Amino acid sequence: MIKLSKFPFKTLKTRPKISDNISTSILLQAWFIRQTMAWVYEYLPLWYKVLKKIEDIVRDEMNKAGYHEMLMSILTPKELWEKTERWEIPEYFKVPAWGTAEYRISPTNEENVSPILNEFIQSYKDLPTCVYHIQKKFRNEKRAKSGLLRWREFIMKDAYSFHRNIKDFEKFYKWAIKAYFNVFERLWLGKDTVMADADGWAISDKNSHEFQTFLSIWEDIIVQDSKGYCYNLEIASGIADEKNIKEKELQIKYIDSIPEIVTMEKMTSYFEHNDWQMLKTVVYKTNSWRFFSICLRWDLDINELKLSKFIKNKYGEWFKQANIEDLKKLWTVRWFITPLKDSKLKMDNYWDNSIKTVKNFFWWANIIAKSTKNINLKDLDIKEFWDFNIPKEWFTSINIKWEKLSFKKACEVWNIFHLWTKYSKPFGLSYLDKNNKMVTEVEMWCYGIWVSRLMWVIAEYFMTENGIAWPKNIAPADYYIIIIWEENIDKAIKLSKILEQDWKDVIIDDRKWRKFGFWQKVRDSELFGIPNKIIISPKTIEAWGYELKERWKKEQIIKFQ
Amino acid sequence: MIKLSKFPFKTLKTRPKISDNISTSILLQAWFIRQTMAWVYEYLPLWYKVLKKIEDIVRDEMNKAGYHEMLMSILTPKELWEKTERWEIPEYFKVPAWGTAEYRISPTNEENVSPILNEFIQSYKDLPTCVYHIQKKFRNEKRAKSGLLRWREFIMKDAYSFHRNIKDFEKFYKWAIKAYFNVFERLWLGKDTVMADADGWAISDKNSHEFQTFLSIWEDIIVQDSKGYCYNLEIASGIADEKNIKEKELQIKYIDSIPEIVTMEKMTSYFEHNDWQMLKTVVYKTNSWRFFSICLRWDLDINELKLSKFIKNKYGEWFKQANIEDLKKLWTVRWFITPLKDSKLKMDNYWDNSIKTVKNFFWWANIIAKSTKNINLKDLDIKEFWDFNIPKEWFTSINIKWEKLSFKKACEVWNIFHLWTKYSKPFGLSYLDKNNKMVTEVEMWCYGIWVSRLMWVIAEYFMTENGIAWPKNIAPADYYIIIIWEENIDKAIKLSKILEQDWKDVIIDDRKWRKFGFWQKVRDSELFGIPNKIIISPKTIEAWGYELKERWKKEQIIKFQ
Repeated sequence: MIKLSKFPFKTLKTRPKISDNISTSILLQAWFIRQTMAWVYEYLPLWYKVLKKIEDIVRDEMNKAGYHEMLMSILTPKELWEKTERWEIPEYFKVPAWGTAEYRISPTNEENVSPILNEFIQSYKDLPTCVYHIQKKFRNEKRAKSGLLRWREFIMKDAYSFHRNIKDFEKFYKWAIKAYFNVFERLWLGKDTVMADADGWAISDKNSHEFQTFLSIWEDIIVQDSKGYCYNLEIASGIADEKNIKEKELQIKYIDSIPEIVTMEKMTSYFEHNDWQMLKTVVYKTNSWRFFSICLRWDLDINELKLSKFIKNKYGEWFKQANIEDLKKLWTVRWFITPLKDSKLKMDNYWDNSIKTVKNFFWWANIIAKSTKNINLKDLDIKEFWDFNIPKEWFTSINIKWEKLSFKKACEVWNIFHLWTKYSKPFGLSYLDKNNKMVTEVEMWCYGIWVSRLMWVIAEYFMTENGIAWPKNIAPADYYIIIIWEENIDKAIKLSKILEQDWKDVIIDDRKWRKFGFWQKVRDSELFGIPNKIIISPKTIEAWGYELKERWKKEQIIKFQ
Repeated sequence: MIKLSKFPFKTLKTRPKISDNISTSILLQAWFIRQTMAWVYEYLPLWYKVLKKIEDIVRDEMNKAGYHEMLMSILTPKELWEKTERWEIPEYFKVPAWGTAEYRISPTNEENVSPILNEFIQSYKDLPTCVYHIQKKFRNEKRAKSGLLRWREFIMKDAYSFHRNIKDFEKFYKWAIKAYFNVFERLWLGKDTVMADADGWAISDKNSHEFQTFLSIWEDIIVQDSKGYCYNLEIASGIADEKNIKEKELQIKYIDSIPEIVTMEKMTSYFEHNDWQMLKTVVYKTNSWRFFSICLRWDLDINELKLSKFIKNKYGEWFKQANIEDLKKLWTVRWFITPLKDSKLKMDNYWDNSIKTVKNFFWWANIIAKSTKNINLKDLDIKEFWDFNIPKEWFTSINIKWEKLSFKKACEVWNIFHLWTKYSKPFGLSYLDKNNKMVTEVEMWCYGIWVSRLMWVIAEYFMTENGIAWPKNIAPADYYIIIIWEENIDKAIKLSKILEQDWKDVIIDDRKWRKFGFWQKVRDSELFGIPNKIIISPKTIEAWGYELKERWKKEQIIKFQ
């Protein structure tokens, strides 16, 4: 039982204005958190209670799934990070010690877990195995990406599993994700947390997964279809909206332009064309100086991920966007590239499927002061069509006919990475297979729940105008007892003890100085988000009881036991 | 329930030899811990279970005592440490970040807690207040002081209390120490853990306290008297043993020495004198160049703490030992200082009480190649007698007549520091007193339990030849079930579930590969220190039950329920 008169906290009269988001302002006002420095927070007593409850739910589900908890070190020696070629990553802190020694405060723990498990894993029977820990991590963030998504110091539940092969993993994974679904269900986020397909596992063609909680303030976009299938916009495809597709194809024609029109913005406004009726060409070069272009409707953007997968398959090479110098070699400059059949540009031109939705494009002429109108597919130098675009919300689904894509803003709360043998190799992991033959390929996966981010997500998700309406099982307390008239403290304590026998946490608001009136106490109880309020006042005592107000319910008088 | 066949651990066949101590070797052998780097450890799954149980006991007692738990940040900005003039301490890590920014990974949290509590404390009614957290701390240790006493990364329960004055503190403290006694009692260390008086609270004359657990391998020495009173040797006093006190005082006399005898060792052996019959003089200078000497029996050493308190009272100045250049100014060199009445040395000579226990000292003559014999008190230039020595085990108590001092090796497991206003001042803590007047003196105390050290202390304290016989309430598990014949796994699981309903933790040793025989399993159960062993074998099943072997008891057959 917490007696507020002796509890070190101080709710603020006004909500501090911070740019990040409203829930953080509420957390600061309620004295749940306090900023130590940019993107580093103190977890004050009430907040710490919430954290512990969340951690315990995560821990319980991990243990039930057969993961084993441990606690890895935060300080790690430089040598471990040199082995995996991660010492020089600028977002990872380096800590100078005596002499020339340098350590790292770990941002992630592959470099800890791999050598540990290397000692354990000896036989194929030891696989699969999975360990985890819940611990603070550190990142030398230059600037927070978007408000509260990233911290310099944060708490993470990171699990690492080890497998013989993908098949072994898949069997394990089917069970593992159940645990994660349970976690979000128990945190009352289940309804709006989805497992979405996301970018693939590095060199794999398969999609990865992530758990995303729908929240309007976050920046990830999840596409959800009516059958419940979800995927991150980064891998989404859609069917582009048909524009003037029913128009008649006209004859291609050069028209006068003016030399000053060197940007597309100027061109659209000068000729009063719709942006979708313009083309966009981006020229790239590969590391062996092969040039290629990607052309699409001007109102759409290229999805770099789709592009890189396509090109890797096509050429097996890395590539980057061509610069002005490169373009000179092609006898062109950026604003005059129009891969028409007669343009004689020495490069492969790939066209986004979206251009099939427009007739009579309007574009450059590869000649200064000229433009081209009535461009149609037949006029173009087309090497291949492909899906290169980032779909728009008005595109339709490729899976469900006529269904428009549904975009939802979301926050990633869980992710998984296929680490292949990236960390197991340098640390020499191996095992003896059924035939007693040494196998040196141990596949690793890692799974993360940002516990501290999760708290913010929950706060944001459950906030009301008056505070955070915490889910019952993680609220800082179950009951908030307000006493009117000091003499009733004994009754409050007696009642608390009864509630505590039932494993309930109780806060007694017995503050009497600083002019804490009844309504201030009610306000604080809502700011803290305690689900049940109890009022013991002369009026309720006259009725031999107390008033119980459960969240979202009407208040009632309960007789004292 | 843990099934060992799927549990990531690997007990080592032999005990790794490390210089530190045997318990660490056992912990390494049992795969409780693993070294990440010097003085940094990974806490492996079984060890982590022990840690959590210890933490929960500490937490429970702190909460019951009315302390409030929170979680402070590890990363802290440089500015906070500059405020308290602690930024440049070389044992505290500095962490470079982007640009010129530097952070600290906290070795202690006064710089966190003071600004937090500054926001809370407003009225005298807010005091006393006390908060704590259990978190990892970091120290840039150059070399570990003595094996496992210090780590570069360690877990600490650090509490901070805030008070109006000493009286306010004392009232609070009386209750607080009860919580600490409870902690050590619940960890089964109560019998051999004492609260000892130690060096005073900085500028206070009062003694400080510390909890010390008697353990032969640690280096603190606690003096315990027959009445149970304990104190750290650093503040101990005793009555020196009387030597030739009954001899007749002879006439002082100069005798020939030889110039080569320039050290005391040479002198004692040359003249075949007892060391206690020689004098020792150490010359110091204060910051205003005042010289003074401390003289005592040569077989004793000066307690620097007693000395500094004495001198601070006497001169109110700092001081250090005089060097050769300083001694030249006194017309002497180190080996020829003998503060005799006629020696005309321009300094104050203080004499340790111990010289009263010897007659006819033998010493230098302040002249090269001469010595002096038969020196007695009357011949000496004595400014004052005082207790300057570090007592020996054969001294007698100053409190209990004739009782010899009893020395015990111990390890400090708890300490307290009176921080005065050292941290509250720079962070501007203040409050309004009863008369609504602003008071800017907020006194702080801090209290530490090294949770990670405590684990080592417990391991060392409870180790046997075969492993660590953990106290029941913190053992990694309550029951260790060994099954003989794989078919019995179902019975083991059923039994575990019954035990788990009673909140017991169970390990099932179902390992069958790698030739794990019965005795290997028994050995591991003892290495882990699980208090109860259960054996399910064809033999016990024939008797419709299992064999239960509780630690220190005879085994018995229990019928299955």
